[in-house]
Amino acid sequence: MDQRAFQDLYPDELSYCYGCGRLNEHGLQIKSYWDGDETIATFLPKPYHIAIPGYVYGGLVASLMDCHATGTAAAAAYRAAGREMGSEPALRFVTASLHVDYERPTPLGVPLEVRGRVTEIKGRKVVVRATVSAEGQVCARGEVVAVQMPEHMTPRK
Amino acid sequence: MDQRAFQDLYPDELSYCYGCGRLNEHGLQIKSYWDGDETIATFLPKPYHIAIPGYVYGGLVASLMDCHATGTAAAAAYRAAGREMGSEPALRFVTASLHVDYERPTPLGVPLEVRGRVTEIKGRKVVVRATVSAEGQVCARGEVVAVQMPEHMTPRK
Repeated sequence: MDQRAFQDLYPDELSYCYGCGRLNEHGLQIKSYWDGDETIATFLPKPYHIAIPGYVYGGLVASLMDCHATGTAAAAAYRAAGREMGSEPALRFVTASLHVDYERPTPLGVPLEVRGRVTEIKGRKVVVRATVSAEGQVCARGEVVAVQMPEHMTPRK
Repeated sequence: MDQRAFQDLYPDELSYCYGCGRLNEHGLQIKSYWDGDETIATFLPKPYHIAIPGYVYGGLVASLMDCHATGTAAAAAYRAAGREMGSEPALRFVTASLHVDYERPTPLGVPLEVRGRVTEIKGRKVVVRATVSAEGQVCARGEVVAVQMPEHMTPRK
């Protein structure tokens, strides 16, 4: 079983994303993996990822869901096609819409668990439901509609 | 007319937010202002706020909307109460839900204009619609449901 993260299998030119690009030294470098039919990522926020003292910034929670979900979409699309992740041509997804419900404040200082589950996969579209939990409690739930990257969005030189 | 940003009028202990806290040296330090009945913020992403080369990371777009909208909610609540922003007791809002539709890729390297408009203000809840535009074109539209900060969310020491 391949223990590399989804994001470590993106082609180099698509690996600069602030949220999950392994080549973005300033970024969050989120790493997502299969866990059965779900996907999982863990992330320890930095002390400065603060909202009000003691709690995690909501924009970070949204960012974690976003990148984990587009990674999940890519992994699911490869799996649905019976292809090995990372094989060419690359299947890479962007976010069409993002919805986050903040159910309780997310405590700062503990690892966050991000989970994803594909609820729809049709044509170029993959819908992913995600949660962000801390200390075993779900703090936020979200849904991301991811679409396969359009041709005109290939990297702008 | 007070030309200070909404966020510059938050009390010190609520000014560490990664998105908009003036006291968070690592953060985005978003600054929002009234523009008639709308609110406006401008933000120039850093080169590392990249999604794929040439475009802005969607999590940043969501973060800009989030902090601009909670700032807008606070400003609108003060205005509705006929109070000067920053007067005690502080009216400070957190995000209950965030929805973003990414309508077109957001180009990197140009200033982004974030606009907010209050569509509902009722009790402790304020709903804000927001757009993020670049070069005169709307790139993303969103809606934030903001609620006045509950007592139990006061800063955790």
